[in-house]
Amino acid sequence: MRPQGQEEFDGHTAYDNVLTGELDSGPGSGPSPDTDSQGQGVPKDPLLFIQLNELLGWPQVLEWRETGRWVLFEEKLEVGGGRWSAPHVPTLALPSLQKLRSLLAEGLVLLDCPAQSLLELVEQVTRVESLSPELRGQLQSLLLQRPQHLIRTTGTRPCRGSAHPRESSHDEEAPLKEQRQNALRHKLPPGAEAGAVLAGELGFLAQPLGAFVRLRDPVVLGSLTEVPLPSRFFCLLLGPPTLGRSYHEMGRAMAVLLSDPQFQWSVRRASNLHDLLAALDAFLEEVTVLPPGRWDPTSRIPPPKCLPSPHKRLPLQTQEVKDSSAPRRARAEDRHGHPQHTPSPELQRTGRLFGGLVQDVRRKASWYPSDFLDALHPQCFSAVLYIYLATITNAITFGGLLGEATDGAQGVLESFLGTAVAGAAFCLMAGQPLTILSSTGPVLVFERLLFNFSRDYSLDYLPFRLWVGIWVATFCLVLVATEASVLVRYFTRFTEEGFCALISLIFIYDAVGKMLSLTRAYPIQRPGSPAYGCFCQYPDPGGNESQWTRTKPEDRDGILSMDLGLVNASLLPPPECVRRGGHPRGPSCHTVPDIALFSLLLFLTSFLFAMALKHVKTSRFFPSVVRKVLSDFSSVLAILLGCGLDAFLGLATPKLMVPREFKPTLPGRDWLVSSFGTNPWWLSVAAALPALLLSILIFMDQQITAVILNRAEYRLRKGAGFHLDFFCVALLMLLTSALGLPWYVSATVISLAHMDSLRRESRACAPGEPPSFLGIREQRLTGLVVFILTGISIFLAPILKFIPMPVLYGIFLYMGVAAISSIQFTKRVQLLLMPAKHQPDLLLLRHVRLSRVHLFTAIQLACLGLLWIVKSTPAAIIFPIMLLGLVGVRKALEWVFSPQELLWLDELMPEKERSTPEKGLEPECSFSGSESEESELMYQPKAPEINISVN
Amino acid sequence: MRPQGQEEFDGHTAYDNVLTGELDSGPGSGPSPDTDSQGQGVPKDPLLFIQLNELLGWPQVLEWRETGRWVLFEEKLEVGGGRWSAPHVPTLALPSLQKLRSLLAEGLVLLDCPAQSLLELVEQVTRVESLSPELRGQLQSLLLQRPQHLIRTTGTRPCRGSAHPRESSHDEEAPLKEQRQNALRHKLPPGAEAGAVLAGELGFLAQPLGAFVRLRDPVVLGSLTEVPLPSRFFCLLLGPPTLGRSYHEMGRAMAVLLSDPQFQWSVRRASNLHDLLAALDAFLEEVTVLPPGRWDPTSRIPPPKCLPSPHKRLPLQTQEVKDSSAPRRARAEDRHGHPQHTPSPELQRTGRLFGGLVQDVRRKASWYPSDFLDALHPQCFSAVLYIYLATITNAITFGGLLGEATDGAQGVLESFLGTAVAGAAFCLMAGQPLTILSSTGPVLVFERLLFNFSRDYSLDYLPFRLWVGIWVATFCLVLVATEASVLVRYFTRFTEEGFCALISLIFIYDAVGKMLSLTRAYPIQRPGSPAYGCFCQYPDPGGNESQWTRTKPEDRDGILSMDLGLVNASLLPPPECVRRGGHPRGPSCHTVPDIALFSLLLFLTSFLFAMALKHVKTSRFFPSVVRKVLSDFSSVLAILLGCGLDAFLGLATPKLMVPREFKPTLPGRDWLVSSFGTNPWWLSVAAALPALLLSILIFMDQQITAVILNRAEYRLRKGAGFHLDFFCVALLMLLTSALGLPWYVSATVISLAHMDSLRRESRACAPGEPPSFLGIREQRLTGLVVFILTGISIFLAPILKFIPMPVLYGIFLYMGVAAISSIQFTKRVQLLLMPAKHQPDLLLLRHVRLSRVHLFTAIQLACLGLLWIVKSTPAAIIFPIMLLGLVGVRKALEWVFSPQELLWLDELMPEKERSTPEKGLEPECSFSGSESEESELMYQPKAPEINISVN
Repeated sequence: MRPQGQEEFDGHTAYDNVLTGELDSGPGSGPSPDTDSQGQGVPKDPLLFIQLNELLGWPQVLEWRETGRWVLFEEKLEVGGGRWSAPHVPTLALPSLQKLRSLLAEGLVLLDCPAQSLLELVEQVTRVESLSPELRGQLQSLLLQRPQHLIRTTGTRPCRGSAHPRESSHDEEAPLKEQRQNALRHKLPPGAEAGAVLAGELGFLAQPLGAFVRLRDPVVLGSLTEVPLPSRFFCLLLGPPTLGRSYHEMGRAMAVLLSDPQFQWSVRRASNLHDLLAALDAFLEEVTVLPPGRWDPTSRIPPPKCLPSPHKRLPLQTQEVKDSSAPRRARAEDRHGHPQHTPSPELQRTGRLFGGLVQDVRRKASWYPSDFLDALHPQCFSAVLYIYLATITNAITFGGLLGEATDGAQGVLESFLGTAVAGAAFCLMAGQPLTILSSTGPVLVFERLLFNFSRDYSLDYLPFRLWVGIWVATFCLVLVATEASVLVRYFTRFTEEGFCALISLIFIYDAVGKMLSLTRAYPIQRPGSPAYGCFCQYPDPGGNESQWTRTKPEDRDGILSMDLGLVNASLLPPPECVRRGGHPRGPSCHTVPDIALFSLLLFLTSFLFAMALKHVKTSRFFPSVVRKVLSDFSSVLAILLGCGLDAFLGLATPKLMVPREFKPTLPGRDWLVSSFGTNPWWLSVAAALPALLLSILIFMDQQITAVILNRAEYRLRKGAGFHLDFFCVALLMLLTSALGLPWYVSATVISLAHMDSLRRESRACAPGEPPSFLGIREQRLTGLVVFILTGISIFLAPILKFIPMPVLYGIFLYMGVAAISSIQFTKRVQLLLMPAKHQPDLLLLRHVRLSRVHLFTAIQLACLGLLWIVKSTPAAIIFPIMLLGLVGVRKALEWVFSPQELLWLDELMPEKERSTPEKGLEPECSFSGSESEESELMYQPKAPEINISVN
Repeated sequence: MRPQGQEEFDGHTAYDNVLTGELDSGPGSGPSPDTDSQGQGVPKDPLLFIQLNELLGWPQVLEWRETGRWVLFEEKLEVGGGRWSAPHVPTLALPSLQKLRSLLAEGLVLLDCPAQSLLELVEQVTRVESLSPELRGQLQSLLLQRPQHLIRTTGTRPCRGSAHPRESSHDEEAPLKEQRQNALRHKLPPGAEAGAVLAGELGFLAQPLGAFVRLRDPVVLGSLTEVPLPSRFFCLLLGPPTLGRSYHEMGRAMAVLLSDPQFQWSVRRASNLHDLLAALDAFLEEVTVLPPGRWDPTSRIPPPKCLPSPHKRLPLQTQEVKDSSAPRRARAEDRHGHPQHTPSPELQRTGRLFGGLVQDVRRKASWYPSDFLDALHPQCFSAVLYIYLATITNAITFGGLLGEATDGAQGVLESFLGTAVAGAAFCLMAGQPLTILSSTGPVLVFERLLFNFSRDYSLDYLPFRLWVGIWVATFCLVLVATEASVLVRYFTRFTEEGFCALISLIFIYDAVGKMLSLTRAYPIQRPGSPAYGCFCQYPDPGGNESQWTRTKPEDRDGILSMDLGLVNASLLPPPECVRRGGHPRGPSCHTVPDIALFSLLLFLTSFLFAMALKHVKTSRFFPSVVRKVLSDFSSVLAILLGCGLDAFLGLATPKLMVPREFKPTLPGRDWLVSSFGTNPWWLSVAAALPALLLSILIFMDQQITAVILNRAEYRLRKGAGFHLDFFCVALLMLLTSALGLPWYVSATVISLAHMDSLRRESRACAPGEPPSFLGIREQRLTGLVVFILTGISIFLAPILKFIPMPVLYGIFLYMGVAAISSIQFTKRVQLLLMPAKHQPDLLLLRHVRLSRVHLFTAIQLACLGLLWIVKSTPAAIIFPIMLLGLVGVRKALEWVFSPQELLWLDELMPEKERSTPEKGLEPECSFSGSESEESELMYQPKAPEINISVN
């Protein structure tokens, strides 16, 4: 294996990510013939660091100072501020490029210069006819002078090198200590080269002096560049001080040219001046021009989110530089930038019973050893911590809600145990081991329905549930056998988003509803209410007590406003009163003050705090590590804050119910659920009906999540396992039903967070460059460790009883809001409220008429409303079928919308795509010319984004 | 007078704001010799609307379609979306500009063409040798074909004109109905002209055909352009379909050129082809170039906040077009863009007693009639409503706080009466009638100190206060007589911000402190507390009652947990109990549940709601009118929401105390405060000491506000009146002290809001152009009406008693937070928490070392800390002197920081500026060249911003 942390540099530098924009996934330790062949390939050009040294102070004290540097973007020395500017897109003036061209055309061009040191190089460069020997000497000593760099080593203290003329001994050419400690050096990948541009006004020159040198063997030129990299290019632009700042601008132009990948590629291969000038002309052909009256040239443009991909650029026009390794590549995407929608091999029907499952097992088995070896990376430790906390937060929240939904038939302990057992088993067996299993919203809804049903008909809940589970597992196995998972190809974004929006809304509705029910449980006493007070009354042999018992219960509180006469009473708190044999009397005895409002405060606090912490990630404050931690652990921190507030005030808010020992939450039941209990035998057969519906629900939930997790933009190498995953879910269904644990399916958001914490990214080599995504560390170990830790946490359960329920409701609300705000559907709903001219510049809106977008949104809203109504009526049990109906509605939409519109608003469904070849994807307008500009925008590489579903 | 609403167009179109960037203030109705001369001046070039019609559909059905339009920025037709894109900065490809140049050089150029209709024009244009008569006929009929425009009239329905070839009758050339109803037309100023660019591929042409026409007399060319404006320019770019999309790009290039002010200016005056090409070359000289590898040319750049000012551009290089009305102007600013800091005439010492006051009166008297006439504009109505609501919000809040601070010696009624009387008087008399008087934070602090002092020494507060007021008025008159107001020149941003930050912190501290004191007044009952319950006990002839009275009061509650034996009791609420002759007994009788937490909820709700509404202004949702209303009335709406919540729950939260009748809040006092009360006579002399300090405070408060209100960037025409304003404040001091009303000085934030609501802005003529600021409607009427309404509102006082105090505290917190977040000091404090690389690109940071910025911030923080400590100790009374000490500290900073640094961090103080001429303002570095680029950034016009102080 390679040394860890090194791999990102191997063929995956910022440079070639930009240069080729390729989709490959880097060397892995598993069997990956395709990636290996890509890894070898043609040698890439090294990254180039370019520095502009300016000659300043003429005619007094001449000194060289670094005033700009480039890797991808420009950084400018802020002389007054003593700092480097933020990286920005370099802007040039056209005349400076033209002047540079003529200076180069007349000047000295040395390609493959054999100089081995700065001294040799200087001698070569100054060997021009126009210079007298005296001037040559002066110039040489000037060029050997040590330049001043602003190097950030530990502090921001600028390193002002002494400005004395340099001797030409070789020791002096060794890089300085500051250079070697330069923070920038550690960012640049090994093999990077430097280019130095020296520009300025020199009074004793009679005419401009231009020289461009390409060194045959790159060599470290002493302290010429701030980073001691071997220099490949050297450019000198000096002249008499007549042209104002034009040498500065020409120097910048040269540096920007060298930082352009296409120009650099050409000039590395140029064999004469003609090639150099041709490359410059090719650059000029492609520049973007901003009109002077509409753009202030001193404005700095921040680095764009994604750079133009090189295959968009014009082909090189000089014949000489054509070469097999030219930075152009075959395009794997169609002209809209969508990856070609050929069904992946996992989703092709074999036609044999369990054929898909067998294939899945066979495919995944070959990766099995690497699934553990690939986990040996420090990144996995932090991933484990993060996902562990997310998992137990989920287990606590879901356990608490399940306990409420089933009147304590299951609870937090079951939730922990189930999560640990099911999760660990899944991680070991599943097709997609990055999946984190969890009890999810829709299953909770269904479980509540089941419980209410069994309560209404006085059934024994857990045995009934066991039979439902057995049937579900059976149906699921049938689905596996018939390779039903290939149907997921019909799940388009329309279905995913409809499902996700519904779940999110259920979360939000439940959270707010439970919070409101708390205010009913602990009513707020208003001053206007006539009844007031509470006291402790003792049984009185006289007759008052009998008078009490004679009145009806509902009249008792009313009567209290009347004169009670002489009673035997004290003001003990109600529990104490009961203990001493008295009766608490009065309306205040029933109410606990402040609880309702304090619960509301806790609810709002935990919700708002979690939201705020989530947004810390994009704030400017604090180092990025701190921001990432605060943002990643937002729910945990919000729960802790809520618990702290609650403990501080010490009010008797409702808390999470946790059994004191390690035993099932429901008193008196064994871990193994009895097969019938008090239920009639035929119920085990009748359970097949709800089980059928639950099977649909679980199929939808599991497979939608699986589709999302296996999206192409995550660049998974080890393939998906739709059939295998579903098989595992079926088996676990059986296990959890037998033990009375919650039911589990894949959880989208936590799984995506898991993948996100295992991203492999290129290190940012250049200032201003966003790190580019290389793939995911696909392995089974992190998930396994997370669930083992969850299992151990069962013994932490007694601590959990300090968590107030309103805090959990707040987190629940947060989950719902976070999930619903991440989907495109929500963005389109927001469009309904925006005046057209304030709408953001979405690609969608450039290509689809606003009225059509609104129509699509309205249809989605109507579907959602219908689902909601079904869910809220007694017909709720058929809700899974309605969910499946979404796929049908989407199919019907093909009658309403054109394929182009659906392509932008959704995706195409598989058949439709097959029946409409290239033609169907073309824009409707007959003049295709005007489209080509826009469709280019689609080449932006898709970054993985969490855009659907919850817990 | 001119018709209202029309004036913004007269010489103040978007076009010349951009072209000349001038600072003038437009025609007013007052004596304004300077503006009139500017108003006449040389005639400005009219605004140009440019449209690109593309020929599409070759070789099938040829049709012209408008695919782009330009005024300042580019709008592109989104063919798929059926809408105009958002306005953006146009970007061009360099080759298209070069191709355009060569096409123009070879093509037909008609300058001052006398054509009077499209038909004539087409005949002129097609009279080229290369065309055969047959082709010419074909071309003519094609050019006369009606183009398709996407016109937004009522809906977004595109207007697809019929594509039949047009007859050449004159009736047909009349603009279409859709054109006349075009929404864009109403935005463009009268006198605007159109330019049409026609481009496309035409198969039957053998060689490219280019024609550029400048019409001698602009004429409406039928339906050629979507807006029926007289066309000045007409450009035809047609050719065989060999060059791909290059005609489209050339057309865009031509349109962008025409939309460039410099090019347009030149081409309007060009006399031959050479001039035209020279103008194009001058444009090319100035373009900004973006390198192809770092910038995606299809990205759209949103319009920048401020356009480059034309005097930054290169001087025109063609000799022929030099002209007296060239768009260059003398620069009124120094090279850093700061307005020249010559002391304004209001602040020059006359040396005579009351000389400044006399001058102020004389200056303002000449404007007096116009101060009423200028108010006749509909904008003033909405300003009155807005400021009226802000004023009564302030009067309520401040009245409530004053009532608390002085134990009810003054209250809401005094606040309303005082605000109405003082405000109206000030508006009628003052030098700056836009000022809104208000009781402010520091005076409240001082008033509280005075009250505590008089309570501690058992003094009669209001008579004592009367004498303080008399002395303050005396001192203030002395300050007026000695022209002390000229000292305001020493108030730099350092002083302003120190003062503002302190006041804001006092607001925040007070709001939170008062909220916390509520939770002490209404304690939250915890379950652990042993005492519990409340009942009503009647006097008993037996002996239990005597047992009650025998125990000490502090034991009574403790004893309640014991057995009470037989008591004569009921559970009536305490007030009812007392009414019936009983005694409420028990610890619960003293506590009111839920009040503390509900108050906290109200406090947070009103604060957060006000904050959220304030930010609605910058959201994308809702039409801008709705957003503006929500944002402007954020405090009022937040108060209403708080009242609504409170009324909904009906809890006995503490409410604003308002007297039931129109009489002073303190019972038993007359409106006129008695001159001594029970105080000793010598106290009237001793009052001089606190009065001295209060005078300093009022001077600082009044003058800092006055300096801010009279800043140059607000472009006030009628001049300031520092002496007169202060004189009015002194007189009102006397009046309010005698009547026992609050003390008043100018309030920064409300006054700025007042000015903001009276802004005169150029209407946005061009899509994407931000409206530019023309000045303020300076008049006395809006203020006067506001205060008359406030006076009438006294009779609304009974309604005010429904406002809960926590809501007012929340608004107070909001005011403090809003004020402190608006100052630069806060931004610099935030920099302390940001890693250097995440810091925003502030100009400040480009020019001053970060360590020096932090040092300056630290010194300000230390000053603030010191002031806070003084304020919180018994030495608080000398606090005004400390405040004055800020000016001294600022002076001392000149020993620590260089003038350059102070220029960026603060401003220069007057002497310093005189002693350091040009040299002092130069950047420190010896190579001035590298600075010139950055200093250009400072030419950005300063927009008025509310950046200091509160209420």
